Amino acid sequence: MHFFRRGGEIFWREAKFVEPAKIFLEGGEFLQEGSVVAEYLSKDLPYKLSPDDVFLTAGCTQAIDIVVSALARPDANILLPRPGFPMYEARCTYTNLEMRHFDLIPEQGWEVDLDQVEKLADENTVAIVIINPNNPCGSVLKYQHMEEIAKTARKLGVMVISDEVYDHLTFGSNPFIPMGVFGNIVPVLTLGSISKRWVVPGWRLGWIATTDPKGILRKTKVVDSIRSILDITTDPATFIQGAVPQIIEKTKDDFFNNIIHVLRDAAELCYKIKDIKCITCPHKPEGSMFVMVKLNLSYLVDISDDVDFCSKLAKEESVIIMPGSALEMKNWLRITFAVEPTSLVVGLERLKSFCERHEKN
Amino acid sequence: MHFFRRGGEIFWREAKFVEPAKIFLEGGEFLQEGSVVAEYLSKDLPYKLSPDDVFLTAGCTQAIDIVVSALARPDANILLPRPGFPMYEARCTYTNLEMRHFDLIPEQGWEVDLDQVEKLADENTVAIVIINPNNPCGSVLKYQHMEEIAKTARKLGVMVISDEVYDHLTFGSNPFIPMGVFGNIVPVLTLGSISKRWVVPGWRLGWIATTDPKGILRKTKVVDSIRSILDITTDPATFIQGAVPQIIEKTKDDFFNNIIHVLRDAAELCYKIKDIKCITCPHKPEGSMFVMVKLNLSYLVDISDDVDFCSKLAKEESVIIMPGSALEMKNWLRITFAVEPTSLVVGLERLKSFCERHEKN
Repeated sequence: MHFFRRGGEIFWREAKFVEPAKIFLEGGEFLQEGSVVAEYLSKDLPYKLSPDDVFLTAGCTQAIDIVVSALARPDANILLPRPGFPMYEARCTYTNLEMRHFDLIPEQGWEVDLDQVEKLADENTVAIVIINPNNPCGSVLKYQHMEEIAKTARKLGVMVISDEVYDHLTFGSNPFIPMGVFGNIVPVLTLGSISKRWVVPGWRLGWIATTDPKGILRKTKVVDSIRSILDITTDPATFIQGAVPQIIEKTKDDFFNNIIHVLRDAAELCYKIKDIKCITCPHKPEGSMFVMVKLNLSYLVDISDDVDFCSKLAKEESVIIMPGSALEMKNWLRITFAVEPTSLVVGLERLKSFCERHEKN
Repeated sequence: MHFFRRGGEIFWREAKFVEPAKIFLEGGEFLQEGSVVAEYLSKDLPYKLSPDDVFLTAGCTQAIDIVVSALARPDANILLPRPGFPMYEARCTYTNLEMRHFDLIPEQGWEVDLDQVEKLADENTVAIVIINPNNPCGSVLKYQHMEEIAKTARKLGVMVISDEVYDHLTFGSNPFIPMGVFGNIVPVLTLGSISKRWVVPGWRLGWIATTDPKGILRKTKVVDSIRSILDITTDPATFIQGAVPQIIEKTKDDFFNNIIHVLRDAAELCYKIKDIKCITCPHKPEGSMFVMVKLNLSYLVDISDDVDFCSKLAKEESVIIMPGSALEMKNWLRITFAVEPTSLVVGLERLKSFCERHEKN
């Protein structure tokens, strides 16, 4: 049955005049995967999602694509975090959706600068994007701060897009809380995927969920827009759709615990980066697979900025680090610790010796 | 290695400052799938495609999405066949690319009305779309007519987009000829997929190939546009990418011969539809999985048009046929014969008894 899902959908679209066919198809197995994801997400929410609240996508990349496209209209703007995930900037540029960046505050565990958010928003602001657990900062938002974000968004009259692609990948003191918990305060579009928690990047199975118990996104036709775009867009491969119930329902806790264990150890290893003189790490990573560290150029000779640092590091030590400039964070570095531990150790050693070699006497 | 392809690509993008990493990645296995498709397509061409000429997509749906998006700009227009495949119309509407429809002539084996094409085109026309073998007509273009299409496109200064998703699925007297054969006359973007020939709909593995030996699409930056859009768009699932060499290189002729055999028999069965009084079939299907037939309403009572016909047929006989109106072909019907033979026979019998019941005395 899964095999023919796409065929079924086309068939349904073509047969839109024909009520009996529609009823037949909707009564079939076609919604099974959506309902499994709805059930999965509902476990962490104070209300229950229905299969209608979940749209499967070809990975979280496509979820971002579709949500941004659904919101883009002339004069609209969207609030994006700095640093953030560049796919948002790319899709906004592509669809001509104006971006306004608010800062995450490193000294406050990369919390959102809510005063700035209030100043940036106007009557044309359609949404604020939150990434939690955070890529690239490695931070995890606290309940109280999330509630403040929700209240601010409500005050501004904008929905929250909560990118939770790293959901449950936390290993510090803050547990993962889905933004949808505050769906009664403000409508939330939750983006997710099996890529990170199940460690299957490239399988291309994600979702958009309307965690919106008051049904505001439905009333304001946002859901209709999403559905229309999905109708003319490629789908996740059928056999991955077919595997979703098995993947989500049958993965044992041991598997997840092991991943968390591996990531926690890697984050600990990575945090040693703070011992390098020219680097400071304002916040120990406690989620996702990344950390942002600050480069102090005053300790270095012959390094002009973060890009120069990363280029020379790659040439001299064959170590690749992403310069913060790519995330509008000049003279910061984004480090991933989702690396095999021995490579991580060697990489850090090389980074250290590179820094020492370029240090001022 | 395949498993990490997407990771590799992101990595490459992020490391764009870093030449060594780029060289490492490009030297790796990452281009293998593209090169297999290039080799596959080259077998039917008078020149050889390089892996750089092929872009893998998440099915042909995404290939259409990306090609239309790459060509859309204010004031531009594109020439689309009538009847055609509605995804083109949907994507053009979505990206604000003006559509101009030229007719396929049923009495001439659904050949392109080239006089009309010349009248429709102007200095803002960017491309003409050809679907061959043809969905929904079941026709297969002859060499000479294809050469005329190429020459007309060249004269008009527009590229050809050749949708060959049904490539090699021919079972009449006209063999399949890829439009790229005429790449020396006019640049051709060839769209394809494994969905139809390998009968794996939903696996979501397609391609865009620049069959353009003169490199015009490269010079005019069309290739750059395609590449930019692919950069910010979801990919085919990694393990399907990984399976492409096996799928393409190791499928035996027996498999293809069997599919052709099944389709030829089904087309023969389906062609009996012409014996129904109110239906005429101007051209016997010889390719793809579809045929267009004309409804003669003057033979029927209480049927107002094709939509009414299909609605009543569904209600009374539980047989679903697509009304031509959905393809801008009022009072035509699109029939698929990619159906299990016994169902096809029963469906045709029911269609026949429906028609007889509604016939004028």
